[in-house]
Amino acid sequence: MDKLSPDQIVRLLLAVAALLATGRILGELVRKFGQPSVLGEMLAGIVLGPTVLGAFAPDAMEFLFPMKGNVPVALDALTTVAISLFLLVAGMEVDLSMMFRQGRVAVCVGLGSMLVPFALGFGVFYAGPAMAGIDNERALVFAMFMATALSISALPVIAKTLLDLGMYRSDIGMLIVAVSIFNDLVGWIVFALVLSMMPGQQVHRFEVGETVLLTLGFALVMLTLGRWLIHKSLPFLQAHLSWPGGVLGFALSITLVGAAFTEWIGVHAIFGAFLVGVALGDSQHLRERTRTTIDQFVSFVFAPLFFASIGLRVNFVADFDWQLVLVVFALACAGKILGSGISAKLMGMPARQSWAVGFGLNARGAMEIILGLLALNAGLIDNRMFVALVVMALGTSMLAGPAMQWLLQLKKPRRFTAYVGARSFIAELKATDRFKAILELVPVSGAVGLDFNKISDAVFERERVIPTGLGNGIALPHARIKGLAAPQVAMGLSRQGIDFDSPDGELAHIILVILTPEEDQTTALALYRDILSTFKDRAFREKVMRVKSYTELLALMASSTGAHPGEATVISPAPAR
Amino acid sequence: MDKLSPDQIVRLLLAVAALLATGRILGELVRKFGQPSVLGEMLAGIVLGPTVLGAFAPDAMEFLFPMKGNVPVALDALTTVAISLFLLVAGMEVDLSMMFRQGRVAVCVGLGSMLVPFALGFGVFYAGPAMAGIDNERALVFAMFMATALSISALPVIAKTLLDLGMYRSDIGMLIVAVSIFNDLVGWIVFALVLSMMPGQQVHRFEVGETVLLTLGFALVMLTLGRWLIHKSLPFLQAHLSWPGGVLGFALSITLVGAAFTEWIGVHAIFGAFLVGVALGDSQHLRERTRTTIDQFVSFVFAPLFFASIGLRVNFVADFDWQLVLVVFALACAGKILGSGISAKLMGMPARQSWAVGFGLNARGAMEIILGLLALNAGLIDNRMFVALVVMALGTSMLAGPAMQWLLQLKKPRRFTAYVGARSFIAELKATDRFKAILELVPVSGAVGLDFNKISDAVFERERVIPTGLGNGIALPHARIKGLAAPQVAMGLSRQGIDFDSPDGELAHIILVILTPEEDQTTALALYRDILSTFKDRAFREKVMRVKSYTELLALMASSTGAHPGEATVISPAPAR
Repeated sequence: MDKLSPDQIVRLLLAVAALLATGRILGELVRKFGQPSVLGEMLAGIVLGPTVLGAFAPDAMEFLFPMKGNVPVALDALTTVAISLFLLVAGMEVDLSMMFRQGRVAVCVGLGSMLVPFALGFGVFYAGPAMAGIDNERALVFAMFMATALSISALPVIAKTLLDLGMYRSDIGMLIVAVSIFNDLVGWIVFALVLSMMPGQQVHRFEVGETVLLTLGFALVMLTLGRWLIHKSLPFLQAHLSWPGGVLGFALSITLVGAAFTEWIGVHAIFGAFLVGVALGDSQHLRERTRTTIDQFVSFVFAPLFFASIGLRVNFVADFDWQLVLVVFALACAGKILGSGISAKLMGMPARQSWAVGFGLNARGAMEIILGLLALNAGLIDNRMFVALVVMALGTSMLAGPAMQWLLQLKKPRRFTAYVGARSFIAELKATDRFKAILELVPVSGAVGLDFNKISDAVFERERVIPTGLGNGIALPHARIKGLAAPQVAMGLSRQGIDFDSPDGELAHIILVILTPEEDQTTALALYRDILSTFKDRAFREKVMRVKSYTELLALMASSTGAHPGEATVISPAPAR
Repeated sequence: MDKLSPDQIVRLLLAVAALLATGRILGELVRKFGQPSVLGEMLAGIVLGPTVLGAFAPDAMEFLFPMKGNVPVALDALTTVAISLFLLVAGMEVDLSMMFRQGRVAVCVGLGSMLVPFALGFGVFYAGPAMAGIDNERALVFAMFMATALSISALPVIAKTLLDLGMYRSDIGMLIVAVSIFNDLVGWIVFALVLSMMPGQQVHRFEVGETVLLTLGFALVMLTLGRWLIHKSLPFLQAHLSWPGGVLGFALSITLVGAAFTEWIGVHAIFGAFLVGVALGDSQHLRERTRTTIDQFVSFVFAPLFFASIGLRVNFVADFDWQLVLVVFALACAGKILGSGISAKLMGMPARQSWAVGFGLNARGAMEIILGLLALNAGLIDNRMFVALVVMALGTSMLAGPAMQWLLQLKKPRRFTAYVGARSFIAELKATDRFKAILELVPVSGAVGLDFNKISDAVFERERVIPTGLGNGIALPHARIKGLAAPQVAMGLSRQGIDFDSPDGELAHIILVILTPEEDQTTALALYRDILSTFKDRAFREKVMRVKSYTELLALMASSTGAHPGEATVISPAPAR
C-alpha cells in the first residue's frame, strides 16, 4: 500500500502540531477580548499561511505546508474528517423538539429572517454577477449561492452569545435559538440544493434533477425514519455494548457513512454529517457524557485544525477587496436585521427586542465560512469573494453580543474572581480571630488612596452588628466605603479556621472581605450570591483548602465549573434538552 | 494544494467507517467472551483485508482499500496520527512514582523478567536467523529485535486483567503493575535503540551512533526536564486557558512535536509520543476529566482504527506458519514466565504467587503488535514472522487472566445483574404489601422445577423473623432453598413503595428476591454488598425509578458505573494516582 515516507510523516506531524498550537494560542488570545475562538483559529491559519509566513519565510511555509505531494493530501484527509465531525456536533445541537415548541412565531420569524436577505442577495447578485468576476453561464447558481450565504445564521455562535449574556433561557433567547435552528436546517438544505445544481461539478454520476431529488430525499429520510431508528436503537446499544465505546463507535460510523453518501450524490460530505448529527442529537437516549466526549474532542481538536487550515489556502491581504467586503457586509446586515427585526415586530414584539432578535440572528459564524470554502473549492466564487464572506461571518458574529447587550440594556454578570487578583489573595491567613483576619485582608484589597484603618473600622462596625459567618465555613465581612471608586475584594484561606459566629457553628475557612462604593447598592449582593453558589459543594471547598497559590485557585475553579465566565468558543455547551 | 477528489473522499470515509464499525462489532463480540477488544479490532482488519474480503471479493476490497494513490496515503496519515495518540495514552498510564514506591523488588523482578527472555531470544535468533528468512547482514539487529519483542510486557492489558480479577490494589497486583511499568519503559527505549541501529533505514540524516545518542538523550530529557516543565506549566495553563481546550491542545501539540522529533532522528514517531505521554501522565496537575476525554476518544476511535488497519496489510491465512508460530509462542512464554517467576521467587514470594506474576507479565497485548508492525515496515521481519508475533501477543494476553485466576484460586466477583434477566425483572410491581411483592417476584425468579409455593413460604418465614427493608428504599427478601441448582434473583420496582419495615422508615421501591442453594453460604452476601453499593446514591435510585424496561435498566447501569463488569478493552481506566 502507498504510504507516507518518514520525512513526510515528520512534516505532517509538525504541520498538525503548528496548526493546533497556534490555533489554541490565538484562540485564547481573542477569547480574552470576549471574541469567539474561531476568529483566533482562523488567524492561526493566516499567520502560518501565505498571508504572513508565506510572505516573510516562504521556505518555512513550503516545508510545513507543501503545495504538492503526499503531505497536502494527508492534511486534506485529516481536515475532511475534522470538518465532518464538526458538522456532526453542529447537527447534534439542532434541537427539533425545541423548534416545534416555539411553533408559529419561530417559523414566521424564521421565514422572514431568511426570505428577506435571500431576496436581497438574489436581486443584487443576479443583477450584477460581473462585479464578482463570474461569467454569465453560472450567474443563476452564483446568485443562488450568495442569496443562501446571506440568509443563513450560525446556531452555535448564537447559542454561545446568549449563554454569555445570561439570556439563553429567557423567552427572547429561546425564540432566537428556535429561529436559528430553523434557519440552520433550511439553510443547509438550500445550500445542498445549490451545490447539487452546480454545472461542471466533478461528479457526473447523476443529472442535476436527480441530485436535487436525492438530496431532498436523504434529508427527509434522515429527519424522519433515520431519526426514529437511531432513537430506537440507542438504548439497545447502550445496554449491550461497552460504554461509551459502543455509542461512540456507532455515532462516528453512521456519520461517516452519511457523509460518504452525500459526497457520492454530488453535494458535500458535511451535509450528510450534519443531518446524522441532527438525527442523533435529537434522541433523548444519547447520554450527556457521550455528548460531552464527542463535543470536547471535536471542538478543541478537530475544529481548530479545520479552521486553521482555511487560512493556508488564501492570502487574506492580497485578496482583500475593500469595496467587495463593504458591499457584502452591508447587504448581509441589512437583509438579516431588517428581515428578522420586522417579522419579530409584526409578531407583536416590542421594538428593542425585535432588533435584538435581528442582531442575534445576524451572526454567521463558522457556518458561513464553511459554506464559503465549499463554494470556493467548487469554483463558484473566487478568493476575493471568499475573503469578503469570511470577514462578514466574523464581523456579524462579533457584533451580535454587544448589539444585543446594548439594545436590551443588559449588564453582564461579573464573578467575584474578577475582583480578586494574585495580590489580593492570601493562601494562609495568620489571623486567629475575625478582627485580625479583617486587618490582614483589608490592606491587600486594592482600595488605593484610602485610609486602611478607616476601612477596617467600617468593616468591624458591620461585623459587630451582624456577624458575617454564613455557615459552610464561609465568612464574608463587608462594608460600603465612602470615596471608593470600584468594588474591591480580598480573599484569604485559613486551615485552622476562624470563628465568625456562623449559624451552623462551624469555623470559617474561606474568608472574603467585600468593599463596595457607598452609592453601589447591587454589586455586594451579586458577589454574595456568586460566592455562596461557587462554594456550596463540600468536596469543592475541601479542594479549595488545599490550594497554595492564586494560580492554583484559578485552575481549580476553571476545571470545576467547566468554563470561565465570558469564555467564547464556537461550540456552545449542548443546549439543555 | 493537492487534495482528495470527491471520489477519493467517498472511498476514504467509507473505508474509515468500515474499519470503525467492523472493529466495534467484533470488539464487542470478543468482549462477551471476556477477551480483550484489541482481538476483535484486529479481526475486523483481517475480515476487511486480503485474508477474507480480498479472497472472496477482491473488487470490494480494492474499492475500499486501494493499494495505490491518494486513498492509502490518506488512510496512512489517519492511522499514523491514531497510533501516536494511542501511544500518548499508553505513556500516560506509566506511573513513575508508583514504580519508585515498589522500589527494589520491582526493579529486581523487572530485570529478571526482561533479561531472561532477552537472552533466550538473542541466543536462539542470533544462532538461527536463517530460519526466519533473514540474510546474515542484518542478523545482529534482527536478533536484537526478536530478543526485545520477547521481553516486553503490555502494561494496559495487564492493568485491565488485574482490574477484572479485582486484584489491582492487592500487594501482588501493585507489584505486577510496577514491574510492567518498568518493562514498558525499558522495552520501548531498547526497541528505539534497535530501530536506530538498523542498517538501511530510509533516514540518513545521522550516523547510527548519533541516532543512538539522540534517542537516549531525548528519553533522558523527557523523563527529567520535560516531565518537570510539564508539571510546572499545567497549573498555569489550567488557570488561564479555556477548559479543557487549553490543556487538550497543549497535550496534543507537544505529543505531535515529540513524535515528529523521534521520527526525524530516525526512530519511529510513536516513541516520542509515548515519552511525552509518560511525562504528561505523571503530573498530578493533569485533571481526571482531561485524562478521561483523551482516553475515551483515543481508546474507542483512534485505537480501533489503527488496529483494524493492521489486518489490511497482511494475509493472516497465507502467512500463517505453524512451526514459526509455535516456536515464537513457546520461546515467549518460557522466557517470560521463567524469568519473572524465578526472580519473584528469589525475592521471597510464595511459589503460586511467583508463577502468577510470571503469567501476568507474560501478556504482550497491543505493544507487541505495534512493535512487530514497525519491524515489518522497516523490513526487519517478514510477513510470516509478523503473523507469528501477532498470534503470540494475543495468545499470551488471553492466557494471563485465566492462568492467574487458577494459580491464585480467585473467584471472579459476579454482579447481581448476572442473575437478573429480562424475564426476572418487573418494571412496575402491582403488589401493595411485602408478602404480595414476594409472591409476584418468586415465580419470575427462574427457579425451575421447584414448587413456587414452597419457595415463597421459605422467603416469608425469613421475612417474619427479620424484615428485609434495608433503608434507602431497598428491600432484599431472601432464602436458601433446598434443591436449587444455582442462585436466582428477581427484581421489581414499585413507584408507590412497599413497606418492608426498614430502619429508616422509608418505603421500599427497589425490591430484589434472592434465592440461593442451601449449601451456598457466600453468594447471597456478595450479592447483598453489590446491590447496596450499586444503589447507594440517591440520584441514581431516582433514575432507576424512571426505568421502564430491563434494557433501560442495563443502559442506565452501564452508563452510570462507567463500565460493565468483565469488560475487556486494551486501555484500562488510568490507574488511580
